[in-house]
Amino acid sequence: MMLYETVNTGVINDEDIPWIPFTPYSPEVLIKYIKCDAIRGEVITLLKAPATMQMPRHHHTGTVIVYTIKGSWKYIEHDWVAREGSVVYETASTRHTPISVPSDSDEIITFNIVQGELLYLDESDNIIAVENWKTALDRYLAHCKEHGLTPKDITSFSE
Amino acid sequence: MMLYETVNTGVINDEDIPWIPFTPYSPEVLIKYIKCDAIRGEVITLLKAPATMQMPRHHHTGTVIVYTIKGSWKYIEHDWVAREGSVVYETASTRHTPISVPSDSDEIITFNIVQGELLYLDESDNIIAVENWKTALDRYLAHCKEHGLTPKDITSFSE
Amino acid sequence: MMLYETVNTGVINDEDIPWIPFTPYSPEVLIKYIKCDAIRGEVITLLKAPATMQMPRHHHTGTVIVYTIKGSWKYIEHDWVAREGSVVYETASTRHTPISVPSDSDEIITFNIVQGELLYLDESDNIIAVENWKTALDRYLAHCKEHGLTPKDITSFSE
Amino acid sequence: MMLYETVNTGVINDEDIPWIPFTPYSPEVLIKYIKCDAIRGEVITLLKAPATMQMPRHHHTGTVIVYTIKGSWKYIEHDWVAREGSVVYETASTRHTPISVPSDSDEIITFNIVQGELLYLDESDNIIAVENWKTALDRYLAHCKEHGLTPKDITSFSE
Repeated sequence: MMLYETVNTGVINDEDIPWIPFTPYSPEVLIKYIKCDAIRGEVITLLKAPATMQMPRHHHTGTVIVYTIKGSWKYIEHDWVAREGSVVYETASTRHTPISVPSDSDEIITFNIVQGELLYLDESDNIIAVENWKTALDRYLAHCKEHGLTPKDITSFSE
Repeated sequence: MMLYETVNTGVINDEDIPWIPFTPYSPEVLIKYIKCDAIRGEVITLLKAPATMQMPRHHHTGTVIVYTIKGSWKYIEHDWVAREGSVVYETASTRHTPISVPSDSDEIITFNIVQGELLYLDESDNIIAVENWKTALDRYLAHCKEHGLTPKDITSFSE
Repeated sequence: MMLYETVNTGVINDEDIPWIPFTPYSPEVLIKYIKCDAIRGEVITLLKAPATMQMPRHHHTGTVIVYTIKGSWKYIEHDWVAREGSVVYETASTRHTPISVPSDSDEIITFNIVQGELLYLDESDNIIAVENWKTALDRYLAHCKEHGLTPKDITSFSE
Repeated sequence: MMLYETVNTGVINDEDIPWIPFTPYSPEVLIKYIKCDAIRGEVITLLKAPATMQMPRHHHTGTVIVYTIKGSWKYIEHDWVAREGSVVYETASTRHTPISVPSDSDEIITFNIVQGELLYLDESDNIIAVENWKTALDRYLAHCKEHGLTPKDITSFSE
């Protein structure tokens, strides 16, 4: 069978994908891995964090699109605030530190389309950790194994 | 000034972008044009439709990612239903007809990232209309002019 | 087996891929289909044409990158000429008519990375034909069948 | 002026772009920077190396397409050889070490389309250097300044 015969438009139901702690960086941040593209390196996620979250400073190797479903947050490096309903468009090779902004909601939920990798940085801008489609998939498969869940092929493009 | 000097990560607030009727196809469907990429042809939108909507059959020349914020819908050509919180991943050169599915909500709202163009088809699969970053931008600029709004540069990638 | 387990960096040797006449548009133009991406709609080709070629006017739904290996050509709609060693970067939703330009070479050879679809236009800008990853794959499979060749999976991303 | 008004299909002539030593990694390797996309992180180059070259082991955060114009080379980690006329398709988050393979040519020339970043690795897989659209542009601008050349805007998408 050729690859194209397996490719089709399909839906991923959020209730079929578990919330997974974003260990070891921010275990109070939860992620649903919707799609991990092993060819292009695109990772599609939902992210849920307490309204008091702060995440590590990082660098993106490609673009990121963030739709904020709930709550408010910003990057320390920018003045603007991303509120419910807003869209953040991040261009390639930019770096920033996400923090929450007080709002009516006690949690922040975002829908994220990430091209390429996240490089986590220390205070001297040294790379201390890397996140990409492989680490995302590994975290998903490990979580499924630990909790006795049958993993779905989140790397496929099938109906 | 070189182009790269204008490029940066930024936010688009949904309240800064008007809802625009999707004329002449489905005037009861409203669209917010978040970003129209004149280089790559990516169009990012929010779409709002009555819970009874049906839209014309169309063909996509690239991928489409749809996050459903509210309501339920499906494609006539597929069995699955896209509910609130689900993600639809559409692969290149697929064609389908969106219709609403009854739910608790009286409207359907989706967040959409479209690569390339939509070709609208008649019953014999002839192409009867084309939608792309140019027609999207034209509709946005015409709407701003008609309503005395100052258009934003939704084609730029600036802070 | 999950899709990611089949994905790896690989080479496509040009001698393993046949030259195929670009019927019905321009049978004197020959194409090698290197890769037809059924997910994203990217088509990678080598194209060889006589130094006297003219091809139909067309519209691109995405970007095109053309590296000219041999010969010279231009678009009627632009003043610049693409010579051996040059790179043409075509932005989304542009349209143009390729013609040859006299040079020392009796043929034109280009390496092309095409995102999305080509819409062929008549003199009134009506769409008269569409080319995409599916028509490319169909032409390749039909050619292999007609000439008794075993087709390779040019839609896969394997070693 | 809005960004889309500056965007059009154009040509980059290779003779208008200088060969630049790939310092500090491999000064005997020369690069022409055709396009550095500050939005998406795509870098398009021509690369010329002596037929005896070996380059450092590296990791790609996105896809790479390599068309070999002259000479032969391989990755130590793979058995296949990329010869003149071949196309290498590299998938996201793969890592490998390029070395030359004896051929009739005393140099290797490739045309390369790189999405995202290159992370150079030491023997323990620590990241020791990063290359992306910014370092590419910096190297180009520094070279132009040093040699009294007027830099072109290789980040723009204009005619």
